[in-house]
Amino acid sequence: MRHIISTFFILLTFFSCNEKEQSKTKDSAKEEFTQADYDFLAIGNPEKMSSASKRALRNNYHKNEEWFGTFRNHEIKGDVGYEKGVIRRDPTMVIQVDGLYYTWYSKSIGKTYGFGTGDPEKKVFPWDKTEIWYATSKDGWDWKEQGVAVTFGPKGAYDDRSVFTPEILEHEGKYYLVYQCIQFPYVNRSFNTVGMSIADNPNGPWKRLEAPILEASKDGEWLGEEDSRFAVKTQGSFDSQKVHDPTLLYYKDKFYLYYKGERMGERNTAGGREIRWGVAIADNIKGPYVKSEYNPITHSGHELCIWKYKDGIAMVSSADGPERQTIQYSPDGINFEIMSYVNWVPSAMGLVTTLDNDKHPTEALSWGLHHLSKNYPGEPWWAGDQYLARFSFSRNRNTKAEFAKSKSD
Amino acid sequence: MRHIISTFFILLTFFSCNEKEQSKTKDSAKEEFTQADYDFLAIGNPEKMSSASKRALRNNYHKNEEWFGTFRNHEIKGDVGYEKGVIRRDPTMVIQVDGLYYTWYSKSIGKTYGFGTGDPEKKVFPWDKTEIWYATSKDGWDWKEQGVAVTFGPKGAYDDRSVFTPEILEHEGKYYLVYQCIQFPYVNRSFNTVGMSIADNPNGPWKRLEAPILEASKDGEWLGEEDSRFAVKTQGSFDSQKVHDPTLLYYKDKFYLYYKGERMGERNTAGGREIRWGVAIADNIKGPYVKSEYNPITHSGHELCIWKYKDGIAMVSSADGPERQTIQYSPDGINFEIMSYVNWVPSAMGLVTTLDNDKHPTEALSWGLHHLSKNYPGEPWWAGDQYLARFSFSRNRNTKAEFAKSKSD
Repeated sequence: MRHIISTFFILLTFFSCNEKEQSKTKDSAKEEFTQADYDFLAIGNPEKMSSASKRALRNNYHKNEEWFGTFRNHEIKGDVGYEKGVIRRDPTMVIQVDGLYYTWYSKSIGKTYGFGTGDPEKKVFPWDKTEIWYATSKDGWDWKEQGVAVTFGPKGAYDDRSVFTPEILEHEGKYYLVYQCIQFPYVNRSFNTVGMSIADNPNGPWKRLEAPILEASKDGEWLGEEDSRFAVKTQGSFDSQKVHDPTLLYYKDKFYLYYKGERMGERNTAGGREIRWGVAIADNIKGPYVKSEYNPITHSGHELCIWKYKDGIAMVSSADGPERQTIQYSPDGINFEIMSYVNWVPSAMGLVTTLDNDKHPTEALSWGLHHLSKNYPGEPWWAGDQYLARFSFSRNRNTKAEFAKSKSD
Repeated sequence: MRHIISTFFILLTFFSCNEKEQSKTKDSAKEEFTQADYDFLAIGNPEKMSSASKRALRNNYHKNEEWFGTFRNHEIKGDVGYEKGVIRRDPTMVIQVDGLYYTWYSKSIGKTYGFGTGDPEKKVFPWDKTEIWYATSKDGWDWKEQGVAVTFGPKGAYDDRSVFTPEILEHEGKYYLVYQCIQFPYVNRSFNTVGMSIADNPNGPWKRLEAPILEASKDGEWLGEEDSRFAVKTQGSFDSQKVHDPTLLYYKDKFYLYYKGERMGERNTAGGREIRWGVAIADNIKGPYVKSEYNPITHSGHELCIWKYKDGIAMVSSADGPERQTIQYSPDGINFEIMSYVNWVPSAMGLVTTLDNDKHPTEALSWGLHHLSKNYPGEPWWAGDQYLARFSFSRNRNTKAEFAKSKSD
């Protein structure tokens, strides 16, 4: 008799445990989506959903409206707009000191020849043989070029060929420029580094550190002797060849150096060029910067556009990869989720640090600087000119909230 | 004693059932991803993955390389390229009859005024007061305009104001044009329909059906009397106001009429304009076309570009929504999954029906026609001109397969 009962118990236990699993999935589905969600996505029959509708719900296309919006481009006045034969690109964030806006950028003059001319002195890219210059403005529209801030290091140093793509951080009354460095000669297989210069005043003088603060991981293996970025035995880490577009943020009492990694033997991905971002973290602003073991933190993006929002970090992913042209947010500076999808993203956005970022998820994007390219008929893209311009971001009209309001009118 | 044993059994059962769950998830994770997947995505430490790396694996950014590639634009010769003051847009698929390529398109001449002029005769959009014209070419580069194919219906008919955005299907020796129709007057709150004309010869004559083959669902409710598309009490279905860009495919012994739906009270979505695609299916080519209960089948896209590949249907999603600029595939014509992400998608692509689609996933995109817009300084976008051009699609070089090959060289 007892045996029968116990067998009954055992069976009962099996059932209850299967039941639990079923009801769990059922409830979570029920809890997860409301009729308002289905209406927002025009899903007429939740019992008969296409893969696209299931994906829309799974990927939260019905959420995060406060992150939706559109970028626009505006020409600026003064010295840093289009000038034939002059490269001005990759503006830093715009800081304000004594009521004056400041930005720094890569500047070079002279013809670009590309690789393989046989003359290692010839300029290979728009950002080759480039110095870091700066400009100021009272209103953010009319900019006056003030001169050079950081130039090449001494011959044989890590930064003797080009210093470019700067970013600025003001911290405890000092000014820190971080930027890409190239050592002579500039070839396809060149690795690069990130350098830092420090000043007590935005007008300088700037003092460079003797050593880079970040280096490419160099842990892939080239194939053959030919100077090809693409011929490799192994690719190595996401940043095995290049550490680009450094952006330095003071976050949670540490210094977060975000950067773009390019890989030896770069491949195409699901969305174009193989580009990923990483972060290196330091207790001291001069380093040492330790690369996060969670890198890469993106599988998309090009130039960095990244800012503090509430307790986390927000960013815009621009040109490359399956998640190009998205706005993302992470609660911890490492784990980013997609908030919205934008149709055009300005290149090399420099944000304005005096905006009240926490006022709204996209407040930091209200306006800023970026660069535009002018290519010439019959010339390769790298023979074109770049110049600074201004962008703005307009939030979505016609949101769920306004829809609710319009109905009550 | 027996009681103790039975209790032991019950506990055992609990454990085994929990263990089962754990090992299940563990195995599935193990099975799912190989070291090659981690290497392709540059994930150094699978035990320490960022959200982006987890998402990359979940969304298959490491798969479907045969779907990766890049679109390019090419100018064409002859009559249908840029012509000041003339609209030529939305080319159909390119069919070949007796060695001659044929395409049909929307054509109109004369100034566009936009809405609200007070004169209902005035042209409101580039595709307003538009007829369907056609052109032929020997080589697909040099096109000769042949004349009008389908014009407006009689006054008071569903198609008395504009016929536009055509698509062609050759079936059992007959030719079928499907296209958007607008009835007078053209206002912001106009609903539209899809019409069909039939000919025994690509040069016509074309005979229109007395009634549309597809209509907007009209199941939303406008708010107020003002002629605003955006003021609604309820939006209704994804296609409550517009059924656009019809594309007719003969698939699995039925006729699949794919179309773009626009919604009363259109909102912004996670990726711009609220645009979704649907499909209506018929046993007879003239209808009746029954809208699928799985609609919407996309939550993105603009003009349709859709073709048969193997046993399924492939498509390119263009301008709008979170999945704009993707290439997708469905095994059944209903359930589409994203295969790759493209950086630029031509507008209103017309594919070439004589290509061997099954040779490669993107063979159907080898070349075709699309339209370009020329806007004029100080004029609104709708006052610009549109003209036909040619696109090509180049597959990715530098794939995993070629990488493997390069290593073995």
